[in-house]
Amino acid sequence: MSAIEDRLAALGVTLPQPAAPVANYIGAVKAGTLVVVSGQLPFGPDGKLAAAHTGKLKPGMGVDAAKAAARLSAVNVLAQVKAVVGDLDKVVRVIRLGGFFSVEGGNESLPAAMNGASDLVAEAFGEKGRHARTTVGVAHLPLDAICEVEGLFEITP
Amino acid sequence: MSAIEDRLAALGVTLPQPAAPVANYIGAVKAGTLVVVSGQLPFGPDGKLAAAHTGKLKPGMGVDAAKAAARLSAVNVLAQVKAVVGDLDKVVRVIRLGGFFSVEGGNESLPAAMNGASDLVAEAFGEKGRHARTTVGVAHLPLDAICEVEGLFEITP
Amino acid sequence: MSAIEDRLAALGVTLPQPAAPVANYIGAVKAGTLVVVSGQLPFGPDGKLAAAHTGKLKPGMGVDAAKAAARLSAVNVLAQVKAVVGDLDKVVRVIRLGGFFSVEGGNESLPAAMNGASDLVAEAFGEKGRHARTTVGVAHLPLDAICEVEGLFEITP
Repeated sequence: MSAIEDRLAALGVTLPQPAAPVANYIGAVKAGTLVVVSGQLPFGPDGKLAAAHTGKLKPGMGVDAAKAAARLSAVNVLAQVKAVVGDLDKVVRVIRLGGFFSVEGGNESLPAAMNGASDLVAEAFGEKGRHARTTVGVAHLPLDAICEVEGLFEITP
Repeated sequence: MSAIEDRLAALGVTLPQPAAPVANYIGAVKAGTLVVVSGQLPFGPDGKLAAAHTGKLKPGMGVDAAKAAARLSAVNVLAQVKAVVGDLDKVVRVIRLGGFFSVEGGNESLPAAMNGASDLVAEAFGEKGRHARTTVGVAHLPLDAICEVEGLFEITP
Repeated sequence: MSAIEDRLAALGVTLPQPAAPVANYIGAVKAGTLVVVSGQLPFGPDGKLAAAHTGKLKPGMGVDAAKAAARLSAVNVLAQVKAVVGDLDKVVRVIRLGGFFSVEGGNESLPAAMNGASDLVAEAFGEKGRHARTTVGVAHLPLDAICEVEGLFEITP
């Protein structure tokens, strides 16, 4: 097992089978030393979207469910990277995560929710996991998911 | 004519003059072996935004108009790539499509609508057209367009 | 001082200390000859988000505040690039700006608002500032900011 997967295991994370795209595209593309990962929904290890990870982030609602969903989405991002490069130890740098959250009304939770994804990546990759990120609140996401996370990685040549 | 344009012609698609940006930017930028394409609206071959391709994707509304709009946006993405590299046969890989749909209320149509773009690229480029993608539902798009599609391509050095 | 910063100074722009990320990520990442900049909020030179640059772009509202906010966000994007590469003269090309505006209801102001960012970059970088861009209207942004701008740059090896 790779060093990064060891660290994920220590965090209690096992990479799932990468989610099959819900339409006519693929989960990740390698181009030179870049890997571009499709927007990942917060499917659980069972491949299902839990009810708690659907709907919208609303005012007054706690951030825990959205944060957990973002973490799951990030796990699925990593599963796609592994599927396309074979071994997460080939990752030189997590360049960027893009987070979209389905929201209703204003709220102060967007950055904290996206930390569910950022924290996982930071814990798993350490220095290599220091990434750029963009977080926005959108009107709707596929399958009514509460979040969607995409990624950009640099890998060894 | 290039092989890819031949295939587009067989699909009934002629690349239009690339749409002039509606503001102070350009349609696509080449950087090394990457081509980054600006978000493209679903202008038709006549350079106009049809009423059917404006407004919002709403619950209970069929997906056909949004899917057709996404296809048109993807055609415009390809026109921008051609304008910057000269020949679509230089495309090594369609790396990523990003799709934004203007939505109101929940609906199950986002992935199917974005397939309008993905299917065109897959039909035109075959294996090279297997791309990553992110699809989100947003609150509003320029010119009240129902969708906007951006792209990232790898080309020959 | 670098040539680009001279030009910015002539435009009345002094690069601020790059804004500290509001969560667990960093402002920009260098990968090879690419620099990827996190979504930047319209913090002013004092590091504060002015009330005029929060809330939503609404029908009937003028575009001036949103345009000024986009310009500030772009200034912050450049500050992040400088922080990671040391000197804006190393920028070979502004590849892409992505603009997200918090909106309510339809309006015709999105492209004009995003020009606040595009114009600054064009004025500062000239030919090298001719960039691709994507502009969308979203439901909510971190800290209730009216806009968020991310960037992609090519730099010298």
